[in-house]
Amino acid sequence: MTYLDHAATTPMRPEAVAAMSEALARVGNASSLHTSGRLARRAVEESREEVAAALGARPSEVLFTAGGTESDNLAVKGIFWARRAADPARRRVLASAVEHHAVLDAVEWLAEHEGAEVTWLRTDELGRVHPEALREAIDEDPATVALATVMWANNEVGTVNPVAALSDVARERGIPLHTDAVQAVETLPVDFVASGVSALTMTGHKVGGPYGVGVLLLARDVACTPLLHGGGQEREVRSGTLDTPGVLGLATAVREAVAARERHAPALAGLREDLVRGVRAAVPDVVLNGDPGDSVTGGGPSRLPGNAHLTFPGCEGDSLLMLLDAHRIECSTGSACTAGVSEPSHVLLAMGADAAAARGSLRFSLGHDSTAADVQALTGVIGSVVERARSAGLPGLRRSSADRASATAVTEV
Amino acid sequence: MTYLDHAATTPMRPEAVAAMSEALARVGNASSLHTSGRLARRAVEESREEVAAALGARPSEVLFTAGGTESDNLAVKGIFWARRAADPARRRVLASAVEHHAVLDAVEWLAEHEGAEVTWLRTDELGRVHPEALREAIDEDPATVALATVMWANNEVGTVNPVAALSDVARERGIPLHTDAVQAVETLPVDFVASGVSALTMTGHKVGGPYGVGVLLLARDVACTPLLHGGGQEREVRSGTLDTPGVLGLATAVREAVAARERHAPALAGLREDLVRGVRAAVPDVVLNGDPGDSVTGGGPSRLPGNAHLTFPGCEGDSLLMLLDAHRIECSTGSACTAGVSEPSHVLLAMGADAAAARGSLRFSLGHDSTAADVQALTGVIGSVVERARSAGLPGLRRSSADRASATAVTEV
Repeated sequence: MTYLDHAATTPMRPEAVAAMSEALARVGNASSLHTSGRLARRAVEESREEVAAALGARPSEVLFTAGGTESDNLAVKGIFWARRAADPARRRVLASAVEHHAVLDAVEWLAEHEGAEVTWLRTDELGRVHPEALREAIDEDPATVALATVMWANNEVGTVNPVAALSDVARERGIPLHTDAVQAVETLPVDFVASGVSALTMTGHKVGGPYGVGVLLLARDVACTPLLHGGGQEREVRSGTLDTPGVLGLATAVREAVAARERHAPALAGLREDLVRGVRAAVPDVVLNGDPGDSVTGGGPSRLPGNAHLTFPGCEGDSLLMLLDAHRIECSTGSACTAGVSEPSHVLLAMGADAAAARGSLRFSLGHDSTAADVQALTGVIGSVVERARSAGLPGLRRSSADRASATAVTEV
Repeated sequence: MTYLDHAATTPMRPEAVAAMSEALARVGNASSLHTSGRLARRAVEESREEVAAALGARPSEVLFTAGGTESDNLAVKGIFWARRAADPARRRVLASAVEHHAVLDAVEWLAEHEGAEVTWLRTDELGRVHPEALREAIDEDPATVALATVMWANNEVGTVNPVAALSDVARERGIPLHTDAVQAVETLPVDFVASGVSALTMTGHKVGGPYGVGVLLLARDVACTPLLHGGGQEREVRSGTLDTPGVLGLATAVREAVAARERHAPALAGLREDLVRGVRAAVPDVVLNGDPGDSVTGGGPSRLPGNAHLTFPGCEGDSLLMLLDAHRIECSTGSACTAGVSEPSHVLLAMGADAAAARGSLRFSLGHDSTAADVQALTGVIGSVVERARSAGLPGLRRSSADRASATAVTEV
């Protein structure tokens, strides 16, 4: 099997499986006062220190949650509630339109349910949020802003945002900035304190750790109303019995991922370039979406090294996905899919793509165990697969070169 | 080590460890469309069917969450929000004062933050909520009730509530009833449909499954506003990547626990009686709190079979706990403990105990791997431990027989 869907979930690192499996057989609630409880607590606190060290945070800034969705919801809703409670005028949430649904839908819920006003931050045609866009949005009415949220790197098209520059803008104006760094931690130089953000989301299963456990890094001076009340764990911001084995697995994976990052990221970018080159050789009119990935800024590469998001004109992404799956090659359409009904990606639409181009796209994502053989498996079959998808397409769904030309939002390789 | 704290967390069942460990090494996000994703989804759906069958629910009523705290918060806040949205007059929450903090603190947050009004349901001196108490509370003003929440069995003193009778009262009046059954599933005949409740909380690590994964059983006709927004998993009520290995571990544990229950529960009750008898022989003035545990109703035993909650007059529970820990015997004070400051249990106070009696209590809880040797280890040392705790107690903290007599809330063994 050729697994090219590491952005959806990446295999657990063997060290993380070992640390977690061993812990599954031990008893002890980390809130219990007896010896077993204190040993569990020590394992959690050592894990907290490891995560903090790997991500440039203080241990007290590490809050363990159930994953990226919970961390995003906690940051967006919790900071909104706390800021509005301190000053009822602060009801405005600034968010980019290319956020993950865990941020997007949390923001929309605040608008529908809690009286928030949303200012959507414009992105450029690569899916990037520029500091000027954040500055303009804040300066419309600075006293009404509760928080801003901009992802570190886009999960679909891989474009990396200038997080430090964005946080400079926010900090100068006293606005807490949250960033969803779920896709960033494994391959980009994520440093919480240096980034200047107030809150940062990450999750275990995107870095070779387990499902069901994530982190919200929350600066000490940022108030955040809990989503989950109860036993008062995690600075009283996130109650719930600590998942000691999961926390150990996550910390092990973060440590391993960050230790390997400097070596791993360029190698991954090289594999990604081979993949794009190989696909392009077989399908000349393929289009690479998002940042071209050939520049490096102070914040590291301008595109996630493992991400290749491609539009295949005249194809339906779902058909391509299923045809590749029949060849035992696994990838994603990178678009929202609910109850089997695929919708064009909100990310591509926000970048200006038309619906047909958005529907005709695939995301290939490489990860820590990807090899040249994986790339060759794909490039060896993609030509015939695309040909078959084009000939299978219903006339009404097939797109001509005129349509392709209208896909102005995408960047030619 | 003698582990008598199964109510805090119980060791994972070997079958659950095996099912989960094996799954940790497999890749595949249950929301992905390719083969690995579909295999993960199938594992989740088969687990959902197993959990449903074991708990008398329909598969579509099983929502996977991150644990008991999340399930409680989701039910209490989510049903409150949905009911209030449908009818703004419905702002009243009925809850017993002996609920777990995950319910209690969620209810109090709704009152402080979301304009809820709380009607606390009175309990008797055993910690039990009677149907009359619920009826009276609803009938004060039926049109204003959003929901009621009453736990299936108390986590501290083990008293079992008449859930079916409570739900009859609620249903006749059109009020959704949520029940926290975290402590009940392993040893009591929990049947969701037969119980008549609208929502039921359970969690993995109290039945021999993993931490970090729980269930909310939610009847199909009960609206519930999500706490976590995002990918729309779990009937759009609980977003977040499904924790396939955790779900497998939980389902395996629930299946094993429920299959063994009829045989296990009476054996456990026998062990518990040996424990209470043995402690009483060594410490004649010990007091058993909660239901005496010698009656059986339609809903099974009147006390959790594995629970012994005892007050040792003239002792501090924390001192007893630490002295027992030095003998490698692990138990709990059964009281809330935040940042090392122990407070008298809200459960005992609600039952009418005085603060000194509440502070001088220990909870011993037996579980699926408890043996007669565990009981003997405790009964062999408890006399000398209590003697030492009494002689070590500060004069101001020691309690005389006059104080003991005032502990009217507790039931003599």
